[in-house]
Amino acid sequence: MIDTGGGNTMNLGEVADSTVNSSPYCYKKLSSHNIREFVDSVDAFLFDCDGVIWKGEKLIDGIPETLDMLRSRGKKLVFVTNNSRKSRKQFAKKFQALGIHVSEGEIFSSSFAAAMYLKVHNFPTDKKVYVIGEEGILEELALAGFTGIGGPEDGKKTPELKSGSFFEHDKSVGAVIVGIDQYINYYKLQYGTLCVRENPGCLFIATNRDAVGHFTDLQEWPGAGCMVAAMCGSTQKEPIVVGKPSTFMMDFLLEKFNISTSRMCMVGDRLDTDILFGQNSGCQTLLVLSGVTNMSTLLDPANNIKPDYYTEKVSDILNMLE
Amino acid sequence: MIDTGGGNTMNLGEVADSTVNSSPYCYKKLSSHNIREFVDSVDAFLFDCDGVIWKGEKLIDGIPETLDMLRSRGKKLVFVTNNSRKSRKQFAKKFQALGIHVSEGEIFSSSFAAAMYLKVHNFPTDKKVYVIGEEGILEELALAGFTGIGGPEDGKKTPELKSGSFFEHDKSVGAVIVGIDQYINYYKLQYGTLCVRENPGCLFIATNRDAVGHFTDLQEWPGAGCMVAAMCGSTQKEPIVVGKPSTFMMDFLLEKFNISTSRMCMVGDRLDTDILFGQNSGCQTLLVLSGVTNMSTLLDPANNIKPDYYTEKVSDILNMLE
Repeated sequence: MIDTGGGNTMNLGEVADSTVNSSPYCYKKLSSHNIREFVDSVDAFLFDCDGVIWKGEKLIDGIPETLDMLRSRGKKLVFVTNNSRKSRKQFAKKFQALGIHVSEGEIFSSSFAAAMYLKVHNFPTDKKVYVIGEEGILEELALAGFTGIGGPEDGKKTPELKSGSFFEHDKSVGAVIVGIDQYINYYKLQYGTLCVRENPGCLFIATNRDAVGHFTDLQEWPGAGCMVAAMCGSTQKEPIVVGKPSTFMMDFLLEKFNISTSRMCMVGDRLDTDILFGQNSGCQTLLVLSGVTNMSTLLDPANNIKPDYYTEKVSDILNMLE
Repeated sequence: MIDTGGGNTMNLGEVADSTVNSSPYCYKKLSSHNIREFVDSVDAFLFDCDGVIWKGEKLIDGIPETLDMLRSRGKKLVFVTNNSRKSRKQFAKKFQALGIHVSEGEIFSSSFAAAMYLKVHNFPTDKKVYVIGEEGILEELALAGFTGIGGPEDGKKTPELKSGSFFEHDKSVGAVIVGIDQYINYYKLQYGTLCVRENPGCLFIATNRDAVGHFTDLQEWPGAGCMVAAMCGSTQKEPIVVGKPSTFMMDFLLEKFNISTSRMCMVGDRLDTDILFGQNSGCQTLLVLSGVTNMSTLLDPANNIKPDYYTEKVSDILNMLE
């Protein structure tokens, strides 16, 4: 039985293994009948993290065993996360602390994507980057050879709204990167807004636009979509989005593996980022119900993003194969 | 000569007294040729404040004399501001401090509008109202008999994103009001988001959606549109807007005066709030260039909000009549 969000429950068996919607994508419940065919059709699994691998600092049940099993079958594993709070190195440490060995090279975070966007577009290294976000973005910028300013350091600053005082900003800022920021404040919003409005050609880059995220195990919190929208509200401009569902990160994945996207499967808990990213890239897609999406959202007639498969949690793959 | 925003200047004389755009509204520069006809056609002037009467704590040149002259000619004066930082009483004190006598009853602020929206819609007084905004909203709520929580008091709170901790919110909150908030933070955004997402039927009310405002004399700052967009980003919902350009406040103006809206003139510095509000209400409209709108924005082909008249500043009315 699963909570459908409105206080009602439905028996997943009712739609088990059957096609529950015919257009534009048919989606199937993962089951002992189709699991072998599914796993055999995939050479690389692309996993989202929050709500899929962990919730906050807690691993979701059965993750280590399932990842071990997939690796033992020769599957490539990659972790593609919109969470920009950490750098790839910090994410690798988090995996380690949770008892899972994942190398930095297997992690594609939106903090990395933001730095790579500047690199690929030959952003001049004598320009600065203002960050509304956390440590991960600053670390990835530094690794890529760029000068990031703002971020956590500006979290305790309070501008004075008084006569005669003038809020100065650095005219050499050529890009503002906005991600999830638990220390969002008026100082940062004014700083970022002035750069985007007044510095000629200043880029406005969003790591992602997730409305909410499972930043702790017990509940959801406003995501980067909240901070990005705030900046859209004050600048009246739309950002370049580098995280999911944008396919920008896929170029780096394709460079890493010599695998056709049709033999990749994106596994995620969000329809509008993970599943859409997979579809936009030509991957297979598997929705897990362990994060922000419940069965009721999936079945909602207003939802037009349909995964190829869905299941409750990643470890179902292991359990069904056994 | 006037700065057109792109570093270029143009001579206003070039378009003086002529129709510069024919559809859907023709707008004229206020001049000694049309000023008498204009002033005679208006019984009540509705003034915006920021960028029209003052910038931050500084009066714009010639305001007291112009308001005195209009009153001496029997014109009704009303101040309709989207700025929700103060209550009507606090605005009256600000006028007083700047040497202008304006009574509370002549002020229609979006903080008042938000409280009146609840009143008019019989919002239950046993429900609470969570405020992302400043003192003005809380004062107007209290005057109208409602219990506001949040606001400045929550400006120094920092939620902990750690395992096992749970962010509690008051289930009796029936409305979230969002306005300009110089102490915006993650705590308030999570609080407001939880109320809107989880409290059944919880209203999401925006005082206004101004992108920026002249909260100090020397520059513009992110406006309520920034905080409102942030809440839209995390809740994925759209708010009820009670300030300009919504005509909600016009009902109160009509109740106060027995004057046809065609004999009212909305005087403001913003096209998308002041001028649109005037047009939506059937008022005449006068754009002043002393605030956020410059000549280049007015002339931009992408702009389809055309005032009836425009001039540089309010005191031009006095100077032209003399």
